[in-house]
Amino acid sequence: MTRGGAVAVVGGGIIGLSIAWRLLRGGADVVVLDDGEPGAWFVAAGMLAPGGEAAYEEPYLARLLELSNERWPSFAAELGVDVGYDDAGTLSLAMTADDLADAARVWTRQKLPLLRPSELREREPALSPRVRAGVYAAAERQVDPRRVVAALRERLAGRIVHKRIDELSEVDAATVIVAAGCGTAALTGLPVRPVKGQVLRLRGEPGLLRHVLDAAVDGRHVYLVPRRDGEIVVGATQEERTDRTVTAGGVHDLLRAALELVPDLAECSLVETTVGHRPGTPDNAPLLGRLGDDGRVIVAAGHHRNGVLLAPITADLIAGLVLDGVADPLLDHFAPGRF
Amino acid sequence: MTRGGAVAVVGGGIIGLSIAWRLLRGGADVVVLDDGEPGAWFVAAGMLAPGGEAAYEEPYLARLLELSNERWPSFAAELGVDVGYDDAGTLSLAMTADDLADAARVWTRQKLPLLRPSELREREPALSPRVRAGVYAAAERQVDPRRVVAALRERLAGRIVHKRIDELSEVDAATVIVAAGCGTAALTGLPVRPVKGQVLRLRGEPGLLRHVLDAAVDGRHVYLVPRRDGEIVVGATQEERTDRTVTAGGVHDLLRAALELVPDLAECSLVETTVGHRPGTPDNAPLLGRLGDDGRVIVAAGHHRNGVLLAPITADLIAGLVLDGVADPLLDHFAPGRF
Repeated sequence: MTRGGAVAVVGGGIIGLSIAWRLLRGGADVVVLDDGEPGAWFVAAGMLAPGGEAAYEEPYLARLLELSNERWPSFAAELGVDVGYDDAGTLSLAMTADDLADAARVWTRQKLPLLRPSELREREPALSPRVRAGVYAAAERQVDPRRVVAALRERLAGRIVHKRIDELSEVDAATVIVAAGCGTAALTGLPVRPVKGQVLRLRGEPGLLRHVLDAAVDGRHVYLVPRRDGEIVVGATQEERTDRTVTAGGVHDLLRAALELVPDLAECSLVETTVGHRPGTPDNAPLLGRLGDDGRVIVAAGHHRNGVLLAPITADLIAGLVLDGVADPLLDHFAPGRF
Repeated sequence: MTRGGAVAVVGGGIIGLSIAWRLLRGGADVVVLDDGEPGAWFVAAGMLAPGGEAAYEEPYLARLLELSNERWPSFAAELGVDVGYDDAGTLSLAMTADDLADAARVWTRQKLPLLRPSELREREPALSPRVRAGVYAAAERQVDPRRVVAALRERLAGRIVHKRIDELSEVDAATVIVAAGCGTAALTGLPVRPVKGQVLRLRGEPGLLRHVLDAAVDGRHVYLVPRRDGEIVVGATQEERTDRTVTAGGVHDLLRAALELVPDLAECSLVETTVGHRPGTPDNAPLLGRLGDDGRVIVAAGHHRNGVLLAPITADLIAGLVLDGVADPLLDHFAPGRF
């Protein structure tokens, strides 16, 4: 399908690189055009969590998330280096009675058995005694997005060009894949909006936490993603804002919820405070597929909170579309032109 | 007194530089030996607060603090550049009934009239309505220590040598002044211990705060020092620790107290998190004067929380000792050998 083998991917984030890697392995002559600005992957914690409330409201999105989650083990293995893929699983937790009432609806649908505080602390000794209930989601794992991007960049050595694209007409290629995250809006006119997230990185003794913790703490959602080396990612605010400011209020709210959940985090060092922007869409499902009639432009963007999780399935679907000219029926539900 | 005019000051922090500047103006041939590590001044907020509880327990320290505070306006003016000297004064505040009971003892001794919440918010509109009471201390001002050090360095251009001193015998000078902060312990054997302080710097709209705010918030002491350019320094933890770790707990506690005091700070950006070590002594009063019998070594260290405030009087007393050979009687109470 690609004339002269020429495919250009606009955007060198985790989506663009994953697609380019699959294309390269499929024999395409691919180049990634990247503006050098770290995307949402740089801030993301890397939770691979196909469950959660949104999925139930969008069954096709739920299916996409599940499929991609199933592909992560082989995707990580094929990268050939340690990308922090960790299958210890997630404890989903509720701190107050109100938090529990909210969470229980999701847990019931997930058919996960409720664990009592003593059972939770057996699994995760550092948890506050105030945690009221939780469930163990074995299928919700983690990966380190910074390691994934580094591995993908290595696989694509020589194929990544540092260039900022302002108009798709600047791109000289038979096929152009727009995987530009929030930048996709300006390039295509599609409704991708930035959803600001503030994220902290702490560092403590390795082993302080064993699982990903995903919790509601007095009505506030917080997650803690512990890496094997002692790093603990704490996220994230969700703000409909475009600025890049780390705010006193954002950092305070994250630290408060994290410390209420795991008091021993107080002694950890606070090593990084960052801001990223999730590429949101009107229904918060991604935009995947051809744009316009000439077949030249393909979009893979708008992954909102699920960019890391959805990288493998996005790469496979888009590579299939380019290499074989076949649109998987699943793509119908994520057509960029649906709005 | 100085043979060949040769005076070496070990330590290029605010104390060492202030002494060297006074000596240079007095005609001494002075050199500052500095290891390049920023001292406590880099982290310090620059509150010039001679009041407070400690002063009443140590009448001679109270006198020293008062005298130095009186000298700050001319000290700042003589530096010839804007060092952020600001005489808007301090609001000392109490959030809860317990905070008020504690603070009232100090305020009564200071003979400052109690201000009601409405009077406080008239002076400082951004204050939380939860603030229970406070006083206005007109004599407690602020300066920006980073600007002061920059100005002093300029005044001493060509006289500052980047050199780490491990033993005083390495210093080839007729008179050696040890103004090495926490490093004074290793150089002299004197009991100077590091008292860790974590300090934040926020940035918001200039004018959000008008005064220095010095508050007790649910038993926790916090101060907010607003600069004219919108920077707000938030300090400080007091920890008997030597590490340089910015901790999740430290940042959380400072932000919580600051946001309870001034809720609008939530929107400010968090631009800096730093750790410094105050040079504490057994009685937390400084060590000022000759060490040993040969008269070669003079100490000016151990200023604990008052290094910025005490810089002018320390410089004058030590310069007088070196240039005129006269020990001001005030120095008797701060003799380095008193322990």
